[in-house]
Amino acid sequence: MGQYVAPIRDMQFVLHEFLQVEEELKQMPSYADVDADIINQVLEEGGKFTSEVLFPLNHSGDREGCHHDPVTKSVTTPKGFKEAYKQYVEGGWAALACDPEYGGQGLPVVLNNSFYEMLNSSNQAWSMYPGLSHGAYECLKEHGTDHQKEVYLPKLVSGEWTGTMCLTEPHCGTDLGLLRSKALPEADGSWTITGNKIFISAGEHDMAENILHLVLARVPDAPEGSKGISLFLVPKFLPNADGTVGERNPITCGAIEEKMGIHGNSTCQMNLDGAKGWIIGQPNKGLNAMFVFMNAARLGVGMQSLGLTEIAYQNALIYAKDRTQMRSLSGIKNPELPADRIIVHPDVRRMLLTGKAYAEGARAFTSYVALQIDRELHHPDADVRKEAADEVALLTPVIKAFITDNAWIATSDAMQVFGGHGYISEWGMEQYVRDARINMIYEGTNTIQSLDLLGRKILGDNGAKLRKFGEKIKAFVEDNGTDEAMSEFVTPLGDLGDKVTKLTMEIGMKAFQNPDEVGAACVPYLRVVGHMIYSYLFAQMAKIALEKESSGDKFYTAKLATARFYFARLQPETATLIRQARSGSANLMALDADLF
Amino acid sequence: MGQYVAPIRDMQFVLHEFLQVEEELKQMPSYADVDADIINQVLEEGGKFTSEVLFPLNHSGDREGCHHDPVTKSVTTPKGFKEAYKQYVEGGWAALACDPEYGGQGLPVVLNNSFYEMLNSSNQAWSMYPGLSHGAYECLKEHGTDHQKEVYLPKLVSGEWTGTMCLTEPHCGTDLGLLRSKALPEADGSWTITGNKIFISAGEHDMAENILHLVLARVPDAPEGSKGISLFLVPKFLPNADGTVGERNPITCGAIEEKMGIHGNSTCQMNLDGAKGWIIGQPNKGLNAMFVFMNAARLGVGMQSLGLTEIAYQNALIYAKDRTQMRSLSGIKNPELPADRIIVHPDVRRMLLTGKAYAEGARAFTSYVALQIDRELHHPDADVRKEAADEVALLTPVIKAFITDNAWIATSDAMQVFGGHGYISEWGMEQYVRDARINMIYEGTNTIQSLDLLGRKILGDNGAKLRKFGEKIKAFVEDNGTDEAMSEFVTPLGDLGDKVTKLTMEIGMKAFQNPDEVGAACVPYLRVVGHMIYSYLFAQMAKIALEKESSGDKFYTAKLATARFYFARLQPETATLIRQARSGSANLMALDADLF
Repeated sequence: MGQYVAPIRDMQFVLHEFLQVEEELKQMPSYADVDADIINQVLEEGGKFTSEVLFPLNHSGDREGCHHDPVTKSVTTPKGFKEAYKQYVEGGWAALACDPEYGGQGLPVVLNNSFYEMLNSSNQAWSMYPGLSHGAYECLKEHGTDHQKEVYLPKLVSGEWTGTMCLTEPHCGTDLGLLRSKALPEADGSWTITGNKIFISAGEHDMAENILHLVLARVPDAPEGSKGISLFLVPKFLPNADGTVGERNPITCGAIEEKMGIHGNSTCQMNLDGAKGWIIGQPNKGLNAMFVFMNAARLGVGMQSLGLTEIAYQNALIYAKDRTQMRSLSGIKNPELPADRIIVHPDVRRMLLTGKAYAEGARAFTSYVALQIDRELHHPDADVRKEAADEVALLTPVIKAFITDNAWIATSDAMQVFGGHGYISEWGMEQYVRDARINMIYEGTNTIQSLDLLGRKILGDNGAKLRKFGEKIKAFVEDNGTDEAMSEFVTPLGDLGDKVTKLTMEIGMKAFQNPDEVGAACVPYLRVVGHMIYSYLFAQMAKIALEKESSGDKFYTAKLATARFYFARLQPETATLIRQARSGSANLMALDADLF
Repeated sequence: MGQYVAPIRDMQFVLHEFLQVEEELKQMPSYADVDADIINQVLEEGGKFTSEVLFPLNHSGDREGCHHDPVTKSVTTPKGFKEAYKQYVEGGWAALACDPEYGGQGLPVVLNNSFYEMLNSSNQAWSMYPGLSHGAYECLKEHGTDHQKEVYLPKLVSGEWTGTMCLTEPHCGTDLGLLRSKALPEADGSWTITGNKIFISAGEHDMAENILHLVLARVPDAPEGSKGISLFLVPKFLPNADGTVGERNPITCGAIEEKMGIHGNSTCQMNLDGAKGWIIGQPNKGLNAMFVFMNAARLGVGMQSLGLTEIAYQNALIYAKDRTQMRSLSGIKNPELPADRIIVHPDVRRMLLTGKAYAEGARAFTSYVALQIDRELHHPDADVRKEAADEVALLTPVIKAFITDNAWIATSDAMQVFGGHGYISEWGMEQYVRDARINMIYEGTNTIQSLDLLGRKILGDNGAKLRKFGEKIKAFVEDNGTDEAMSEFVTPLGDLGDKVTKLTMEIGMKAFQNPDEVGAACVPYLRVVGHMIYSYLFAQMAKIALEKESSGDKFYTAKLATARFYFARLQPETATLIRQARSGSANLMALDADLF
């Protein structure tokens, strides 16, 4: 069933050597005490918890799945999930990056990020139960009333209660403006909510004593479309004044879905039959409040796919070093064996290095953005906060779509290393592929992310945010352009940066004439931007590795090889993507729907 | 659960208008009577059988799977499979392209090919039961003794008995030279075979009264490696002299595998405990005989993926024309509805057209090769037979790898069109993705296909076979290069043809120095060749469509749009692939295995 060892050395490289988080965090008063020792300790303990407690439940959870009882409307999670959650709560893991005011440990997002990678490597389906709580925490913290915060946040922070987001209805997923759930005001300031929601992850389960549903619904006389949506807090059990759980609220699970993967997580059809709720923020401003949750969730989905890329790569590597099959074309490598270890074969290495490069790229990328979130939230300088916030907004859809698409490629490659053994359940590899597939869909499909990036985040401000980010790249290229050893990384980075600038302007011009040009270009465009970012990250990491290679620590040799592989084999995808993005909308739109 | 309608119009276009099979078949005495009426009738009836009988069992077969009884060692196939097989046999479908000498209907391979597409669209897991029989038929027909042919072929042709290929053992899949199963000669000319086989598709089931296993094993004192492998015919039940089934032979199913997909097909661990068998062909020449089966199977796997591409596309199209979500960026398209049909969105069209183009490309490609097989087997002119055989040899690995990789892309895109509904089992879309995944692995992984193409089929004869095929492309480019309307197709085709020539020479030169260059280049190289072939096919089909467009038949409008989409959006993948193939082996081989 494979194994999981948290990639702590690479995490430390990213945090300490690449991002120098200790220095960065010192600038933020709330994190001034977070030193390397604390960080390393959390990584070690997190690695232990996830590999010892969660990983052993991943395959069994997939095979067993969740079970729904239509009479009691309860959901039983797979064997061991509940007990592992108890350990998680007792270990204080839920509180890691939460505000001490509500019982949190006040550690930075960038550290929590590494822990979330571990959670998702070891067990994505399990990690979705606490993962959604964190989004609910952030949403409530930003938009809740003082009373709501007081009652609910400590429960979310401790992990005693979990959270969900109830958006989708049978007839609307992407297009939330169509939603029909209704909320009627009551005299006591509460609301009575009626409607049907589908695809509610962790909507019902047996792991925590209460579940806080964040529900989108319409108030009476709400404007049509997305401007008439309000957000409500609807607990499974109404809380008593003393913080214990009280009366059962009629928000119940009608069924759970059979699906391709993440079988250990309950995907619920939720029925609200006059459930009691309280509004979060202002009426008709629900989508705005929900975006806090959704942005957190989008970053979270990127982390899920990073986690899957890493675990799939790790296990493919173990297999490739063990399995013997065929002789190397360039001469026998393992004469003591009847055949060579398959890691000698170039194409097996191509598949392994694809996973390695995409894992290391995503680790650097998500950690970088997580640190920007820390700066956005905690930096004393308002300009720094604003700049960080802009960058997070720009990069969030790239994290969601680029990392999840890459994980689809990398988990499939890792499975391919196993040949026929990859396709059977026994080795666990095919589960990673099935689990990875949902990440391209939920929390906004990757097409929606691409439209968000190109249409809203880039063309929406005439490229200002992108230009700002591009200036960092330009500065790096200028600073390192004359360094002979760096030219193999800097040259393609600079080239791609220039191409992105040109491509963006070109699409922007075309979009003036025809808005469909944005929809026609956005998906390849997002991947081009993703590669520009990875080129920038790998070039920076290669610079560090070049400087430290002479230390004799082979970690840097490997890092350089991975960067070289990235530029030789993965980054060239941009040659195709740019052509696709430039090819325009006519090749998509010309054909009448009836003639398909 | 969707629907399946055989794409008969496009099949007719490929057979009658593109390949002009009636004219071609007239040159072959055995097929001289096969006219358009017969062909169209088989297509109609085949479409009916597959959509009415097999398609309704596809989803239920996936959910139910096969069941193994460890006591009786029997396997029960999903509900309805057995009855459908009875209808298949009674309808004479098994005999379609078999030799009339053994009870076959003597129809051409190119027609059987279309029927196999339908079988696989409607139910890949089911179709593997008769599909493997056809490979066994071909192998036995070419290498069996007269007695073996007399006893077994009529049973395979009628479908009363099915066949398997027993190659893989736990420690060897790709590397058959390592296999350990043993065969000892008996005084009566039979052999006693002992060993363990895994991943035997349709190895045990309840659909036919007997199963003929073709088993690879070693005879005493056989040379080591692949030169010491012999092929045996090992029936589940020993046949009586009167053709009825007799004694049970100890070749039994120890277990069936849990796997990612094709749940309706039994993937068996087969134990041979002194089973009685008869040698096929000469001792130690088993791999040679088995290659007949394997080549048939490789083409068959390509057909599986064509089938899946088509069915996934069809159902995504139905959904995209029905589902409403968001307004078109270029203005409201369905004012009568609360949102527009999602087929108005450019990226939804990109996903649909990817499926459409890969289905139509694969249909043209496999039909073209099937006709070449007919020529190889039945053309009166030996030179034509030889040329056709060479081309089939060249193109077989491309059919296997290119079509299966494309189906992975296309089925995943089709599923994505459904958003969250694609990920749940209810709609059936995720099954197509899971089923498609095995096709990249079995019958030789796609890496093995790529090595076969580049190493053996191309560099192995100094590019002679490729050059021959390239001459056809060159002639087409020259003939149509001055036609203004054709230039959008001919120019990229000619360019790509030139690039393939250069790329092949470059890799060939590098491979002289270092054989690992072949392994490092082969996978992207195969896809480049695949695109060269599709460019050639789409250019030819576009030419017909241009000529007939003025007829007013909108089929040709659609065909042109598909060809244009192909050249604008899919063929540009070659820009990346060529860079990857040229990047050499160092970026893969530099890193020590220990440093991964």
